[in-house]
Amino acid sequence: MQISSWFDFDKNTDFSIYNLPYGIFSDKNPKRVGVAISNSVLDLSALEKGGLFKDISFSQENTFSSWTLNLFMSEDISIWKQVRKRITELLSSSDELKNNEELRKRSIIPMSEVKMHLPAQIGDYTDFYSSKEHATNVGIMFRGKENALMPNWLHIPIAYHGRSSSIFISGTDIKRPFGQINNDNSSPVFEASSRMDFELEMGFFVGGKSNRLGDRIEVKDAEKHIFGMVLVNDWSARDIQKWEYQPLGPFGSKNMGTAISPWIVTMEALEYFKVEGPKQEPTPLSYLQTGGKMSYDINLELLIQTEKMSKPFALSQTNHKYLYWNIAQQLAHHSLTGCPMIAGDLLASGTISGSTRDSFGSMLEIAWKGEMPVELPSGEKRTFLSDGDTITIK
Amino acid sequence: MQISSWFDFDKNTDFSIYNLPYGIFSDKNPKRVGVAISNSVLDLSALEKGGLFKDISFSQENTFSSWTLNLFMSEDISIWKQVRKRITELLSSSDELKNNEELRKRSIIPMSEVKMHLPAQIGDYTDFYSSKEHATNVGIMFRGKENALMPNWLHIPIAYHGRSSSIFISGTDIKRPFGQINNDNSSPVFEASSRMDFELEMGFFVGGKSNRLGDRIEVKDAEKHIFGMVLVNDWSARDIQKWEYQPLGPFGSKNMGTAISPWIVTMEALEYFKVEGPKQEPTPLSYLQTGGKMSYDINLELLIQTEKMSKPFALSQTNHKYLYWNIAQQLAHHSLTGCPMIAGDLLASGTISGSTRDSFGSMLEIAWKGEMPVELPSGEKRTFLSDGDTITIK
Repeated sequence: MQISSWFDFDKNTDFSIYNLPYGIFSDKNPKRVGVAISNSVLDLSALEKGGLFKDISFSQENTFSSWTLNLFMSEDISIWKQVRKRITELLSSSDELKNNEELRKRSIIPMSEVKMHLPAQIGDYTDFYSSKEHATNVGIMFRGKENALMPNWLHIPIAYHGRSSSIFISGTDIKRPFGQINNDNSSPVFEASSRMDFELEMGFFVGGKSNRLGDRIEVKDAEKHIFGMVLVNDWSARDIQKWEYQPLGPFGSKNMGTAISPWIVTMEALEYFKVEGPKQEPTPLSYLQTGGKMSYDINLELLIQTEKMSKPFALSQTNHKYLYWNIAQQLAHHSLTGCPMIAGDLLASGTISGSTRDSFGSMLEIAWKGEMPVELPSGEKRTFLSDGDTITIK
Repeated sequence: MQISSWFDFDKNTDFSIYNLPYGIFSDKNPKRVGVAISNSVLDLSALEKGGLFKDISFSQENTFSSWTLNLFMSEDISIWKQVRKRITELLSSSDELKNNEELRKRSIIPMSEVKMHLPAQIGDYTDFYSSKEHATNVGIMFRGKENALMPNWLHIPIAYHGRSSSIFISGTDIKRPFGQINNDNSSPVFEASSRMDFELEMGFFVGGKSNRLGDRIEVKDAEKHIFGMVLVNDWSARDIQKWEYQPLGPFGSKNMGTAISPWIVTMEALEYFKVEGPKQEPTPLSYLQTGGKMSYDINLELLIQTEKMSKPFALSQTNHKYLYWNIAQQLAHHSLTGCPMIAGDLLASGTISGSTRDSFGSMLEIAWKGEMPVELPSGEKRTFLSDGDTITIK
């Protein structure tokens, strides 16, 4: 479907009228909800105050004046759809915004004038481990080829709980952490990590009505509880991780920081990218069975720029559709034993790796735990990250 | 120190004038902050409105009218001390409350007339694994005697992130969860857990000013960031746990519910119970070194009552002082890599087991993974929990 807008969208923008991602921004006025349109932010609180959403039955007033998206996320999927439809209308067929110069001035703000913030108050954060290629690679490195993929991996969308308090939006500097390190299996030492790594991931925000403690969300209903997706970089200190992770999983090696993109792309915008996922063999248990197209064909790219480089260099090109476990399966499994899933919770995919080195989603895999250094256009080599390196995920 | 109060404290109450724990309660009026005094709740919001805290410089107004304790928890330790001192005064040496019948009527409410609620909005929840006896017992059962205690255990206060959304206050019924179970290492099945267990734990709430992302809380400053303690029952489905926990730790087997007591006992009230902890050998790394009395001599008892029993029976008697890693070490380690610790976060100890069967803190250990059933006074036997069993922790 072709939509023509009166608004002057940049032809090469990621934020076209087909995208319309939500975020929280501030300028001289406090935090509120906006939508990215080309190089501008459309201020939904201004439109709301102007009465342009008056026909939509929100549960609470002033949804878009809130400092987080949690209120909007907790609405029913039908409300999300009505709002998207209305914004599309206001930018295309309707004259209400187009012909109201005063409101246009108030509600359309250049992106260069705003500061972005965490889009939601994240109650709980979970990180899955849903790429078979990544799990296999890491398994080989940490436990040898024999025990690479644990016996449970093909049956369970494996995940662990992460740390909400250490999630921040991309653009924030991350400090090289100190921690316990024991590389040679002797006595641990307390020092700075020398194996800093990224993990290229995507995550989705939970939305809709929470399930109650003891109840679960069935896989067929999962989409009603998925609001939208963000890019995720799960910063990891591999030397700290290696020494701490048994038997209860990674802890300090991960909770020093996880970056997410400030704009949440809704599932409606991603509808056109739905594809079939990898064949699941053995067949998953009934509670995990999804039919049809439940994976997303989203090209992902990870770039590095060192202090000596004049422009970023692509280290990895991968795709969300490589994930073995899809997001409906992740959500259904998460709530299986009765865990409440609440609007604003973030569930990340785990590192998304393809099958070849140039599609691996972490430095650990690309440089194979330091054994195969990567040569950059600047002539520099990298096995893990150095101070001053900048990582970009697109 | 002996304090005499004009208030009629029950001689056998847990809530004497030396305790004064904080909680969130409601009656015909909405949630607010109270202190347990004998069989009553002292309504701090009523005292606050009555001007009885006017000499204390809170960061915000109406701290005690809040529906959670987060606001009060985020105050400096000096404010916590002033409030405790003031409440003690009002119940003893001062006439201000004693002689104000109208205010007494408004602010002292029989416990039978109130409903208790979660004391804080828990941002993040972490569960440690700090009992050497428990870690050794579970290690023997899950991995054999050779690999019982992982090589990192004596160096790191091992922990994993838990799920805030599934924490509730004690008294709430818990449903037997369904999950993936694979007891005989063949193909997993989807069925109800048949190995439901409790874990006797204590937890502490973080308080004070948060550290920023990338900064850490040093062990010497830990006490300024610890508000108070609660009892914790970390409900566990052992059959689900066994199949899912590798390599990233327990997930659905734990996130179906964690119960905490509604009253938070402050560290000031626990000051008199400080004792030396177990000798730590090898000596911990410098960032974990605490001198003096940093453990707490708190007797803990766990009771079971089946539907056939007329009164509860003590399954376990243990003590918080048995923990190998103390709470200051837990907090310092948690923030080591720069993880922000925020007022309202809950850090639990992990199961607290002593060295003998009658001091083990989980059914898994007491009945040794089902091999040594426990005979109850009713003649019934238990290896794990049956439907209708009630667990009480004191």
